[in-house]
Amino acid sequence: MSSAPGPAREPPRYLSKAEAEAIEKELLEDYRFGRQQLIEIWGHACAMAVTKAFPLPSLPRKQPTVLVVCGPAQNGAIGLVCARHLRIFDYEPTIFYPKRSPDPLYQDFTTQCEKMDIPFLSYLPTEVQLINDAYNAVVDAVLGAEAEAAEGREPCAAILSTLKLIRIPIVSLDVPSGWDVEAGSSGGISPDVLVSLSAPKQCARRFLGRQHFVAGRFLPYDVQKKFELNPPEYPGTECVVALRAPRQ
Amino acid sequence: MSSAPGPAREPPRYLSKAEAEAIEKELLEDYRFGRQQLIEIWGHACAMAVTKAFPLPSLPRKQPTVLVVCGPAQNGAIGLVCARHLRIFDYEPTIFYPKRSPDPLYQDFTTQCEKMDIPFLSYLPTEVQLINDAYNAVVDAVLGAEAEAAEGREPCAAILSTLKLIRIPIVSLDVPSGWDVEAGSSGGISPDVLVSLSAPKQCARRFLGRQHFVAGRFLPYDVQKKFELNPPEYPGTECVVALRAPRQ
Repeated sequence: MSSAPGPAREPPRYLSKAEAEAIEKELLEDYRFGRQQLIEIWGHACAMAVTKAFPLPSLPRKQPTVLVVCGPAQNGAIGLVCARHLRIFDYEPTIFYPKRSPDPLYQDFTTQCEKMDIPFLSYLPTEVQLINDAYNAVVDAVLGAEAEAAEGREPCAAILSTLKLIRIPIVSLDVPSGWDVEAGSSGGISPDVLVSLSAPKQCARRFLGRQHFVAGRFLPYDVQKKFELNPPEYPGTECVVALRAPRQ
Repeated sequence: MSSAPGPAREPPRYLSKAEAEAIEKELLEDYRFGRQQLIEIWGHACAMAVTKAFPLPSLPRKQPTVLVVCGPAQNGAIGLVCARHLRIFDYEPTIFYPKRSPDPLYQDFTTQCEKMDIPFLSYLPTEVQLINDAYNAVVDAVLGAEAEAAEGREPCAAILSTLKLIRIPIVSLDVPSGWDVEAGSSGGISPDVLVSLSAPKQCARRFLGRQHFVAGRFLPYDVQKKFELNPPEYPGTECVVALRAPRQ
């Protein structure tokens, strides 16, 4: 509430994979949050983070294009919601969603984007210069914390190879694709922006990009306490906050 | 985007009951929005409107208390989500929800509030002075556009009698309770603040309160065009906007 500097805040805690799963389980089973509801909340928060990291007037290209690459599971669905809100915020998102889930919930999020005339790519250019030229940024909603099973398999392996080569900024949702939730990455993608969902995961300590946002404002206070999250202070009614100031 | 005055905008269109229902049907059936998702979006937007109409530092009482009165149907569920976000925004909501729906979706929204330690009143004081003294404002999420069937029946009739007598500001969600969606009201409650969901309904022309917010930023552009909504301009990433400046 006050703008006067208060006592120093404890830094937020970085979660293990088991802790992150326990929080999601508690939200779903004890608090009775719905998956549709959580994905909407997280996807909206990710779009808000993109608007903060890449404000419309700051974009280097004439068109406010953003490529949103969505994986087959929950992280991909959050990317779909992020794309929809980016469209509402006057960006021009394009979605690449090569492996669509048969889950009706994810299909509904897909329909919302399709009906809003957000274009879907039928393939990702292997010539990375085409991506560098066409978009201002890429949202990596490929794997998130669901990495292990899908990482080595197509189409994810090919996408990761492409993402490693591109030069435009990458915004990773929760866990950069291909990174281990706890150990992080060696030789993986290097996102410019990381948006941690609910709370940072341990791999975020290895994040060396420009801005690290946390999207956990919606969390019940008892969950924050039980898991000793030491959440950052969210100003006003903001749903995301940057953990460190951007390096200018 | 620009702060310079642009060409005059057409005023937003005020919807008939049939049009409002057609928009909701289109969102649910064609765009495949989920009810859980829409209620979350609307409830969050209503909480944002409350923070704009009654900023924390402006509240007359020491505690940032708000009474949220929830009816049995969808408007009540939106009130529950509004209360949850008000709690996240550091308000102290109290809920009165006398007739709980057996719908599992609404039960889940109720559980979220209960588990977040938002108090539920077991009865509404008939002595209105107790309400005037205890709360800074009342959110009327009783009937909304679902008025006809429930209005004359208990507990809604008693709640409306009480709301007519209280002196603290009322924030009505979508349609002030007891008002006809199109004709408005004679002798009904007189809210200070109205939050129109998606777009204003015809009754909003009779609204004489301080601030009229519209919470329709999420609407697909094609829906805005098809129903000729002429939506207001939402600044930045705001999900609600006031149609007229507050009378100071």
